Amino acid sequence: MTAEVISIGTELLLGQTVDTDAAYLAKALSGVGISVYNRATVGDNFERAVATFRLALSRSDMVFCIGGLGPTLDDLTRDIIAEVMEAPLVRDEALVAHLTDWFARRDYPMNDTILRQADVPTGGVPLPNPNGTAPGLWLEKNGKIVVALPGPPNEFEPMVEGQVLPRIAPGAGSTIVSRTLRIVGMGESSIEERVKDLMASSDPTVAPYAKAAEVHLRVTSKAATAEEALAKIAPIADEIRARLGRNVYAENDTLLEDAVVQALIEKNLTVATAESCTGGWVAQRITAVSGSSAIFQTGIVAYANETKVHLLGIPQALVSSVGAVSPEVARAMAERVKEKTGAHFGIGVTGIAGPGGGTPEKPVGLVYVALATPEGTQVEKCLFAGSRADVRYRSTQTALRLLWEALA
Amino acid sequence: MTAEVISIGTELLLGQTVDTDAAYLAKALSGVGISVYNRATVGDNFERAVATFRLALSRSDMVFCIGGLGPTLDDLTRDIIAEVMEAPLVRDEALVAHLTDWFARRDYPMNDTILRQADVPTGGVPLPNPNGTAPGLWLEKNGKIVVALPGPPNEFEPMVEGQVLPRIAPGAGSTIVSRTLRIVGMGESSIEERVKDLMASSDPTVAPYAKAAEVHLRVTSKAATAEEALAKIAPIADEIRARLGRNVYAENDTLLEDAVVQALIEKNLTVATAESCTGGWVAQRITAVSGSSAIFQTGIVAYANETKVHLLGIPQALVSSVGAVSPEVARAMAERVKEKTGAHFGIGVTGIAGPGGGTPEKPVGLVYVALATPEGTQVEKCLFAGSRADVRYRSTQTALRLLWEALA
Repeated sequence: MTAEVISIGTELLLGQTVDTDAAYLAKALSGVGISVYNRATVGDNFERAVATFRLALSRSDMVFCIGGLGPTLDDLTRDIIAEVMEAPLVRDEALVAHLTDWFARRDYPMNDTILRQADVPTGGVPLPNPNGTAPGLWLEKNGKIVVALPGPPNEFEPMVEGQVLPRIAPGAGSTIVSRTLRIVGMGESSIEERVKDLMASSDPTVAPYAKAAEVHLRVTSKAATAEEALAKIAPIADEIRARLGRNVYAENDTLLEDAVVQALIEKNLTVATAESCTGGWVAQRITAVSGSSAIFQTGIVAYANETKVHLLGIPQALVSSVGAVSPEVARAMAERVKEKTGAHFGIGVTGIAGPGGGTPEKPVGLVYVALATPEGTQVEKCLFAGSRADVRYRSTQTALRLLWEALA
Repeated sequence: MTAEVISIGTELLLGQTVDTDAAYLAKALSGVGISVYNRATVGDNFERAVATFRLALSRSDMVFCIGGLGPTLDDLTRDIIAEVMEAPLVRDEALVAHLTDWFARRDYPMNDTILRQADVPTGGVPLPNPNGTAPGLWLEKNGKIVVALPGPPNEFEPMVEGQVLPRIAPGAGSTIVSRTLRIVGMGESSIEERVKDLMASSDPTVAPYAKAAEVHLRVTSKAATAEEALAKIAPIADEIRARLGRNVYAENDTLLEDAVVQALIEKNLTVATAESCTGGWVAQRITAVSGSSAIFQTGIVAYANETKVHLLGIPQALVSSVGAVSPEVARAMAERVKEKTGAHFGIGVTGIAGPGGGTPEKPVGLVYVALATPEGTQVEKCLFAGSRADVRYRSTQTALRLLWEALA
């Protein structure tokens, strides 16, 4: 079974709204084994929407329309479906009663425009909308299924779960399941070199996605049940894990900070941070994890050199001689905060986040990240591209990765 | 001039990625008067992408392809454009040199796959990508313009601004312009009550958007030129500013931290932070602003009670008697960090971010935010709903708002 999704709304084409509905629906459909090969977005324009709808209907079993079901005159979805499906609109008296009651209970003024929402293409079934006035629509005709849902996410998402998924017979189809392996410390192309043969497989498929300072490998399979799909995925995921080792730090929605905090808790170890260019972001990511108070007590944002000297106790002479952005100062920050707090690990970050402040010797993007451990201290030199936010984020990612590697 | 946007990537069809690029581009194009009537999304499938591309080319002057420009074998955009535009790929030696250099400078291993990114359809111009290895593409042929851009937003957005917009001749058509007034310290309905009459206007339109702990009022107009549109917007924006006063802290993309840092710089004042439940996030937001080193030197993340006592010098007896989450401790944190660092302002944040740790007397979401100023200290009690991340973010927003109000 194939489906196509059409999002209708000029605000989408103007970029004033990001289409989260389409992503939500896509996830839900792939979960029940319905393949979506095409998605389209059109404005509130009758002719263009009709053309898009006809094309979708010609090549897919199901067509979903998102949006355009409100009461106002630019809400055209009902008319578009009536036209293409040759199913003239009929006013549904039960819906009229429901709308009248809805407005009366809220003391909102009622008018004729609102009753457009009670119009249903002939043969269609209105889908109840618990969170708004615009009902959805389910229409089966000529071997095709057409579904229309209102656009506001708080109305749309519950209707996908409560109305659409239960109507799509489970079992008839299959389900698409993915496991996403999250990888740090290797670039996309080195990963590809190591798993190239696995990426040639068509079931499960293996696809790489480059993210900020990490790479995801998504292993996907389609089967009658989720268990079956997962059983096909397991040996491939195992093989990838065997080849990439600890570079695979977690799966699916688990972030690097989640994995690091979990590992620290399990080993009963603690960490403290001393940050310059990241300005507290490493501490922020660690403390974003629920339960982090067991492994994190203290962070120092030593943004100024005086703070590095007075609060961390780094010798002024060192800062003066090699400069604040140096492997020596990164090392001293990590070691001093570890000592000062009695933590098992100390993180030190110093660099030039930009956009200003760079020199030929120390360009924007130069960052030193140090990790002091019970066994000694390592310092990594990084040269990041991108905006100030990119440089800072990648620096925090490096700090967490060093800690992750040290916890092996 | 009409344009069509094609987003290429199976992760989009599976709903694993929300297509923010398409919205970003749509906004940029409408800003220069280019109409987008259709948008499409296809997976990493050659035949289907080619079909979608042909359709787009048949009805639009410009076609934008987003994504699929990476080095791996499922990155098909170069091949798709070469096929449809009958412009065979040629390896560009300048790009080969650039890629080789990029990898060498970073000590990353280089391989043949990476050089696929140096392939350019005949007649095309590579668009430099300052934040990644995949160049974009600009190709004019047979009266049509084809543009390809890489998908990662941190690469995509700067290339829209730096490469695409400058190449599109301004002048043709009309332009839609918005000014967004950003408001803190008032809820959406109190704002609506004060500007209800202005919201009835149809040109410019005035629309409210509730964001996390702030509200945006977007004033939009359409005209032949941006100047004309802005001239229509100005009196309405002025009137809103007159009615809401300093609650309007900035416009458009200026964040609260930007406005606060700017105000501190102008007044030559400094701030220091002492954070518990926000774990460094207030410091992170302040230091995210370029130039913040002039007004921020030190932040302390006092996540544990011992840190509050030893590093900040808060009396153990106070913490023991009233508890770490209390107006007294918030006040002491703000005052101690101000004193200790000699800053003009001190921020103290303590609370229960959840999901665990709440009690009937001190529930999850209870946060005390204190601001110590040269004139005295104020403490705000907050009770936030939402996830751990929501509670933490709203706490940082409250801290920055108090500072903004104190800078009046």
